[in-house]
Amino acid sequence: MGRALVSFLSDYGHEDEFVGVCHGVIARRCPDARIIDITHEIPRGDIRLGALVLADALPYLPCGVHLAVVDPGVGAVAGRDAVALRAAEHDRVLVGPDNGLLMIAAERLGGALEAVEISDSPERLQPVSRTFHGRDIFAPVAAALAAGASLAEVGAPIDATELRTIQLPAASVGDGALTAHVLRADRFGNLTLDASGAQLASALGTDQRDLIVEVAGKAFAARRAGTFSDVQAGELVVYEDGNRMAAIAVNLGSAAELLGVATDQQLRVLAAGAAV
Amino acid sequence: MGRALVSFLSDYGHEDEFVGVCHGVIARRCPDARIIDITHEIPRGDIRLGALVLADALPYLPCGVHLAVVDPGVGAVAGRDAVALRAAEHDRVLVGPDNGLLMIAAERLGGALEAVEISDSPERLQPVSRTFHGRDIFAPVAAALAAGASLAEVGAPIDATELRTIQLPAASVGDGALTAHVLRADRFGNLTLDASGAQLASALGTDQRDLIVEVAGKAFAARRAGTFSDVQAGELVVYEDGNRMAAIAVNLGSAAELLGVATDQQLRVLAAGAAV
Amino acid sequence: MGRALVSFLSDYGHEDEFVGVCHGVIARRCPDARIIDITHEIPRGDIRLGALVLADALPYLPCGVHLAVVDPGVGAVAGRDAVALRAAEHDRVLVGPDNGLLMIAAERLGGALEAVEISDSPERLQPVSRTFHGRDIFAPVAAALAAGASLAEVGAPIDATELRTIQLPAASVGDGALTAHVLRADRFGNLTLDASGAQLASALGTDQRDLIVEVAGKAFAARRAGTFSDVQAGELVVYEDGNRMAAIAVNLGSAAELLGVATDQQLRVLAAGAAV
Repeated sequence: MGRALVSFLSDYGHEDEFVGVCHGVIARRCPDARIIDITHEIPRGDIRLGALVLADALPYLPCGVHLAVVDPGVGAVAGRDAVALRAAEHDRVLVGPDNGLLMIAAERLGGALEAVEISDSPERLQPVSRTFHGRDIFAPVAAALAAGASLAEVGAPIDATELRTIQLPAASVGDGALTAHVLRADRFGNLTLDASGAQLASALGTDQRDLIVEVAGKAFAARRAGTFSDVQAGELVVYEDGNRMAAIAVNLGSAAELLGVATDQQLRVLAAGAAV
Repeated sequence: MGRALVSFLSDYGHEDEFVGVCHGVIARRCPDARIIDITHEIPRGDIRLGALVLADALPYLPCGVHLAVVDPGVGAVAGRDAVALRAAEHDRVLVGPDNGLLMIAAERLGGALEAVEISDSPERLQPVSRTFHGRDIFAPVAAALAAGASLAEVGAPIDATELRTIQLPAASVGDGALTAHVLRADRFGNLTLDASGAQLASALGTDQRDLIVEVAGKAFAARRAGTFSDVQAGELVVYEDGNRMAAIAVNLGSAAELLGVATDQQLRVLAAGAAV
Repeated sequence: MGRALVSFLSDYGHEDEFVGVCHGVIARRCPDARIIDITHEIPRGDIRLGALVLADALPYLPCGVHLAVVDPGVGAVAGRDAVALRAAEHDRVLVGPDNGLLMIAAERLGGALEAVEISDSPERLQPVSRTFHGRDIFAPVAAALAAGASLAEVGAPIDATELRTIQLPAASVGDGALTAHVLRADRFGNLTLDASGAQLASALGTDQRDLIVEVAGKAFAARRAGTFSDVQAGELVVYEDGNRMAAIAVNLGSAAELLGVATDQQLRVLAAGAAV
């Protein structure tokens, strides 16, 4: 399968040595691994955003081992398990805490076929600290898997159907409108909704160019278009984003700021002139 | 030519998965490539600063493929072309949008010898999104070139003399003064001017230690020196920077803040005691 | 010894091309090197924090060459030396300015066995700039060492016992209390003290759960526990951190903010109910 690949996502940030230390632990156990950092700027403890970003990134990464650590419950006596799982598609292996972080990605990859609990993995660094399982458990196990170890060699089998998942809001189509929620905002303030581009087209057709975005009792004029730069600077645009999801942006501006919305905010998108 | 090299500069930032996804796309197409990130913190859409940073960095990088994406016009119907070009020196290949981003670097490398338009490259990821050409066009084309593909294999030939360039301000020397402009400020608030160290010496000689920096009607005392730490803490220093350009700094402080200047601000540097 | 390893720590940040340029210089001289970035977000010129972070990270990195640049005195006429040193343990080689940055790590590795001054190294990039020794001296020398050069080949021998060190504050145990100082705060606001977990246990025993943290005349209730999540959200916790040091955190919050402390701040930890 060629060169070993470990991808890595976390909320560790870059100010401290945490990311570098995990790279070091991986390189010691699997010197040939290529390590790809997906991002380490997930807001502290934001499991759901980490799960969404991981799921959006994986289809574009080489197959391999995908390490993810957003773990506000690290080290708790009655805390979450630490797990490694194999997804149905492409032999991808995911490693991280059993708090939902891995499961949106795993579900998009056909679900988890098998899983092991790795808190007492023979690959862990001892003594295991109470606060830095990324270094002491997750990174060394990911590296061992990248080096060719089997799931059975790094942990104890558990029921893959019992892994914790995250409930996402659900968009709906009806009455000529798309009712959806904000899943995430990116660095540019572009908003990804919990609706596919296909749902958007189903709600509004594909010819309607002048739209209204309703949010928290306010209405904003918007344009349906293919991308930001199809509209004027400062104008609101509703489009299908790079992951084929319905999205809202402001050309050369921030939709998150303009609409004043946060994650999970519900909004409606409808044709201008339609009854509001 | 040894191991394949892809360098990468963008305005994607590190909060999202954009950089990691492009690394993944490159690693899938060219598993042996070493990827060097120049920076991904170019301010959003600042093509000129991206072009200057790219040009300053390339001489220190191994020869290879140099990917750069600062692309406020991504996806526009009548937008810029996407291009790959070969520079005259060292067989370096540059890949990015045809909006000037590549051209300061290309000119310093003897100019673009040949170029291809890559929007419909056979190497692109389909369907190409309207908003993430870094992932769908630029990264896979850069990886294909790093893996040994020729320009002709990744795009359609275009006239290299028609590529868009960026007009920079021009410093001038006369009346015992250097009249120059701020090209960029770095993280430390050090200001690079659009004048070489040689122009600085030509304007003021090399013996004159006490200077005046005039900007926006105000005059600041400064010292001519070799580096920051040749002057007192908080003192303004005029020096030749690491790229042999005239520069202004404050020892253990920020010249950008002290002078209150922004990009393209004009200023004059002259001997203290000279008629102002 | 397998694949060459260069680790890299600095205060260069990611906004500019400085880190990428140093990667480029290393890759040109030692194309096989794996480069691991420890962090580049050390606050500008904070030599001591850089030294502490380096020392905490190295035990988890593969053996190799460890490059570190936090260098407020760069280029000064009567400035610090530039050095490479070999530590007693594991053949690790450290490269950086002789301003104390390397020495906490070197001491934890059994001390510096030998050292060379590298300002005029045959490996340096000429002309050496006055402001960017990371690029012109430190990176190329580190790469040469990673490629197999000996210390003698890259510099002139100096007395390793004369290298500059950093004086750290010292914790003390007595009267049922631990008197300690803040060494560093991480991105999460967790505070590492200058006391080991063993000193903490010696001062307070291991059964005492209810503590007081005294700082600047104020007293804060705290819990002794194994990790953040053993206490309620917002509660102060005293624990042994991932590097086996005494530490103070707030579960799902910032101890640095709650206590209002900065580096070197002295504080006392004692049992609740003890005479204050």
